[in-house]
Amino acid sequence: MHGIVLFAHGARDPAWARPFEAIRDRVRARRPEFPVELAFLDFIAPKLEEAVERLAAKGVAAITIFPLFMAPGGHIRNDLPRIVEDLRKLHPGVPIAIQTAVGEVPELLEAIATWVLQGVD
Amino acid sequence: MHGIVLFAHGARDPAWARPFEAIRDRVRARRPEFPVELAFLDFIAPKLEEAVERLAAKGVAAITIFPLFMAPGGHIRNDLPRIVEDLRKLHPGVPIAIQTAVGEVPELLEAIATWVLQGVD
Repeated sequence: MHGIVLFAHGARDPAWARPFEAIRDRVRARRPEFPVELAFLDFIAPKLEEAVERLAAKGVAAITIFPLFMAPGGHIRNDLPRIVEDLRKLHPGVPIAIQTAVGEVPELLEAIATWVLQGVD
Repeated sequence: MHGIVLFAHGARDPAWARPFEAIRDRVRARRPEFPVELAFLDFIAPKLEEAVERLAAKGVAAITIFPLFMAPGGHIRNDLPRIVEDLRKLHPGVPIAIQTAVGEVPELLEAIATWVLQGVD
């Protein structure tokens, strides 16, 4: 059983989380067998530590973190690896992988370009 | 002729702009007849004012701004409309529309969910 963490920046307004909740709900609806948790760097709960704890408590064999950031800045290049390093020590039996950011995925860049062109055609 | 602005947050590291440059290049390659400019709220040039000025100088009939933000926070709900209000006064002959954020587009949420599931299957 593979656990999924959808990791986003967070903001003061809790409504900011809605797009990420919508992605989580779509993932869950399509493949209910994969436990999926949201996690936020700041402002909105849960933090990454708590999301990983919840998945580990469900007995997942591995966890993949998907950074739902348009581009990989300092939060992804510095903060995230540091947090994950600590989490690996806390959960040595659960391999934790980090995926690339949304803006580094060619098919997502193509989907965004398609959306842009549909908006002006 | 419809002008496109791809509007992103910006970051101290200029390499942060790469995903947005990649989207711009895809848009341009697919439909070279649409003038397309990047614009950043902070840190990276050009700002929105300069991008709109460039498009207006090319004689576009209208401009659509696409906020390449995962979720609409204060920058999109407050800063962007304020900047665009001023730009509309500066360029009264060029209608300027603002599109929704990436995370409010159902087909992009679906594309992200698909990418997530491909990463754990």
